[in-house]
Amino acid sequence: MSENPLLRILHPRSIAVFGASEKITTMGTYQLINIFQGGFPGNVYPVHPKKDTVQGLKAYARAQDLPEAVDLALITVPTRAVPGVMRDLGERGIKRAIIISGGFKEINEDGRRLEMEVVEIARRFGIRFLGPNCIGVINPHLPLNTAMYHYFQRPGHMALASHSGTYVTQVLPYLQKRGMGYSRSISLGNEADIDVVTALDYLADDDDTRAIALYLEVIRRGSEFLRTARRVSRIKPIVALYVGGTEAGSRSAASHTGAMAGSDEIYNGVFAQTGILRAPDVQSLYNWAFCLSEQPGAPGPRMAIITHSGGPATSLADACNRHGLDVPEFSQDLQNRLKELVPATGSSRNPVDVTFGVNMKALFWDIPEAVLASGEVDGLILHGVGGEAYFRDMERVAKGKVHFPVDKMAQFMSHICKGLYQASQSARKPVVCSAFSDRTEDPVIAELQDLGIPCFDTPEQAVSAMAALRRPGRK
Amino acid sequence: MSENPLLRILHPRSIAVFGASEKITTMGTYQLINIFQGGFPGNVYPVHPKKDTVQGLKAYARAQDLPEAVDLALITVPTRAVPGVMRDLGERGIKRAIIISGGFKEINEDGRRLEMEVVEIARRFGIRFLGPNCIGVINPHLPLNTAMYHYFQRPGHMALASHSGTYVTQVLPYLQKRGMGYSRSISLGNEADIDVVTALDYLADDDDTRAIALYLEVIRRGSEFLRTARRVSRIKPIVALYVGGTEAGSRSAASHTGAMAGSDEIYNGVFAQTGILRAPDVQSLYNWAFCLSEQPGAPGPRMAIITHSGGPATSLADACNRHGLDVPEFSQDLQNRLKELVPATGSSRNPVDVTFGVNMKALFWDIPEAVLASGEVDGLILHGVGGEAYFRDMERVAKGKVHFPVDKMAQFMSHICKGLYQASQSARKPVVCSAFSDRTEDPVIAELQDLGIPCFDTPEQAVSAMAALRRPGRK
Repeated sequence: MSENPLLRILHPRSIAVFGASEKITTMGTYQLINIFQGGFPGNVYPVHPKKDTVQGLKAYARAQDLPEAVDLALITVPTRAVPGVMRDLGERGIKRAIIISGGFKEINEDGRRLEMEVVEIARRFGIRFLGPNCIGVINPHLPLNTAMYHYFQRPGHMALASHSGTYVTQVLPYLQKRGMGYSRSISLGNEADIDVVTALDYLADDDDTRAIALYLEVIRRGSEFLRTARRVSRIKPIVALYVGGTEAGSRSAASHTGAMAGSDEIYNGVFAQTGILRAPDVQSLYNWAFCLSEQPGAPGPRMAIITHSGGPATSLADACNRHGLDVPEFSQDLQNRLKELVPATGSSRNPVDVTFGVNMKALFWDIPEAVLASGEVDGLILHGVGGEAYFRDMERVAKGKVHFPVDKMAQFMSHICKGLYQASQSARKPVVCSAFSDRTEDPVIAELQDLGIPCFDTPEQAVSAMAALRRPGRK
Repeated sequence: MSENPLLRILHPRSIAVFGASEKITTMGTYQLINIFQGGFPGNVYPVHPKKDTVQGLKAYARAQDLPEAVDLALITVPTRAVPGVMRDLGERGIKRAIIISGGFKEINEDGRRLEMEVVEIARRFGIRFLGPNCIGVINPHLPLNTAMYHYFQRPGHMALASHSGTYVTQVLPYLQKRGMGYSRSISLGNEADIDVVTALDYLADDDDTRAIALYLEVIRRGSEFLRTARRVSRIKPIVALYVGGTEAGSRSAASHTGAMAGSDEIYNGVFAQTGILRAPDVQSLYNWAFCLSEQPGAPGPRMAIITHSGGPATSLADACNRHGLDVPEFSQDLQNRLKELVPATGSSRNPVDVTFGVNMKALFWDIPEAVLASGEVDGLILHGVGGEAYFRDMERVAKGKVHFPVDKMAQFMSHICKGLYQASQSARKPVVCSAFSDRTEDPVIAELQDLGIPCFDTPEQAVSAMAALRRPGRK
């Protein structure tokens, strides 16, 4: 079997960039900066018809002038110039490309013809390419980022293959704030050559990837998709957001990537047959895929809920039932053990509500440990992670009149978050958290997320992600 | 008609705090600090059986010793001590109280009896009170915040009445990051005296409040609720999150506020009869109420979508149709006018996708203005607000080798966001935005939110909030 073309595109040793210049506010220049300033460990060559250097790097006039047949060419030139560049690549023996330029079949009949011309040139020279009309790829484990926004977060284990470049790159600030990292991110664009089937096939074998997210406006090769997705979803969970199933979605998709989208009914059938989870929105797409990439599956529907907040306890319990999860009342034995850790004004039945109090160790460590080890639940949802941010805010309010033990709290929270992590590891049961603070405010949330324990913005997001971990047949 | 008891509770001229001490990590102390450091313009008196001063303020041993019959007493003492404090209030002629202390009917039969005793004392002395088992109130327009977390954000026009104190106070960091401010926030607790009906009645007449959010675990006075909610929802939109309709939700509510919750069917009927929008989760509750408090209603279902991102354009279009909103193709005339502002690789049909480019004025001002003035749409959804954060990130990546015009971008974005605001004001049509950056990263998002233009985390949240603005019968 021949090598998947994405293997070299995501792991190149050298890259030529067509379209970067001294003008800093152009796409090609952003991308060049992201590649060479972002720590890409290989050679980077700007190609520019007139300049000797671009952004401080020696530039070459044409592909033919490059000192090596690079592993990857990144093309961000005017639409009409793309066929010429592709021909140059072929003559230089360059076999992999990403065509960022748009203006092809997503625009009109002329664009469609031009795209066919590009495909023909590629076939003639044996070039495999992503796009056109895409944003490139991210492999933070290399690192490589050919896209527009910088990748600041840690490498992760969630892969994305997307018909939208925005969901690959512009979403990075959103993901970063939530502690979600990619293993790989692939912008598919118009899929003139490499498509989502190629991407699934590549990601199935990629060791850094533990779950796959798909943003789909269309599936172009139906039977190949069915066959490949069915195989891959047995190895790794796949979550898909499909947005082409309505009249307006379908029309927008046609303008966007030249897609001829199909009805929701057909796509629901495809997802059901292939074991793909269908996400209702972008938030769920990332939440679920992140959760599936970091947490074990829930072997059953029995959930423990632990919190210091009665409202979120009830929101979580209600959402569990709505998502097909149970919140069983604990055995009298377990309740008796928990009663030593829960104040008289709280509840130890499940949901466990310790109410307001300062016994953070009970809330985040002792109770989770006891509950996870009890054998009475298949997963744990915990709301209200954090504490340091609150003390810091109160310190700010008190304006020096009162001092809160901010540093002590920080140390202590860091300590007990490791306890929560260990408890979840010993039990091999999924743990998902929520909190109204985020990692930028409360370092313990960053710590938990970096340990692979998801912490979402709202209680219901935690339940919805836990329900994804409960999908039937998941290991 | 007698004065609504919440009027003085939300607008007191003087407050006595029972339960604050020199110990800084107790609820009563947090609350005292929030009141007197938070800028409350009236007198604040700690009441403490043993101390002469508490947190730097002169303390009084009993209510009887207070120099004035304060407008409001805040009670955070051990459960068993509450009846005695209430008797003291009565003897001092104090008529309004908030009982923070828990341990009443939400716990057991003893607690229920104790709560009845408190109610009896209150009736005897004519005291009206919130709680017990609540967290207090916030009126940022005074300002007054008797709750646990500090209120840092601007005063807003969205009121909350809630059976959960968490959704009043612990949620503040969440709301702040999203530019959402309260007009009033009221923690109802066990509703032994003042309940959600009293709250609706008060909020209906409150001039700072333009929309009302309810977090409900139960409705205790069914027929009064029906009558009042029906009247109030004609004046101001009401959004409710009800979490008692499932087995687990109902059981959790009983432990939380001693509520006997009812089935979803009954509550759906109540909401339908009263014109209350039912929110599916906490995120929607705040999103919708915020939107309804700041934006005009959509007179029809026709939405314009404007963005520089094809993926979000399609997500938005798809979500619109799923929420009963249309995305009509613009007239040829309007398309022709837009074509001057949209590059050839983009689309001007609706969704308008200007694709990647630097013409921010076209994207955020000229196109919205033309579309809103066209008469062809009833509302506008715009994804991708921002720009400064991107340049700042790239500057960081470039490590001094390249300089991006961060300050120029900031000024420019601030300028055009005022243009977007003016366009929406002239057209009197709702505008809702989404972006993957937030106000902490991109000041233009803060500016828009502070001008009352919501900017949500994801495209689908913007559509869901816009759909709430489209509710039938809304002015």
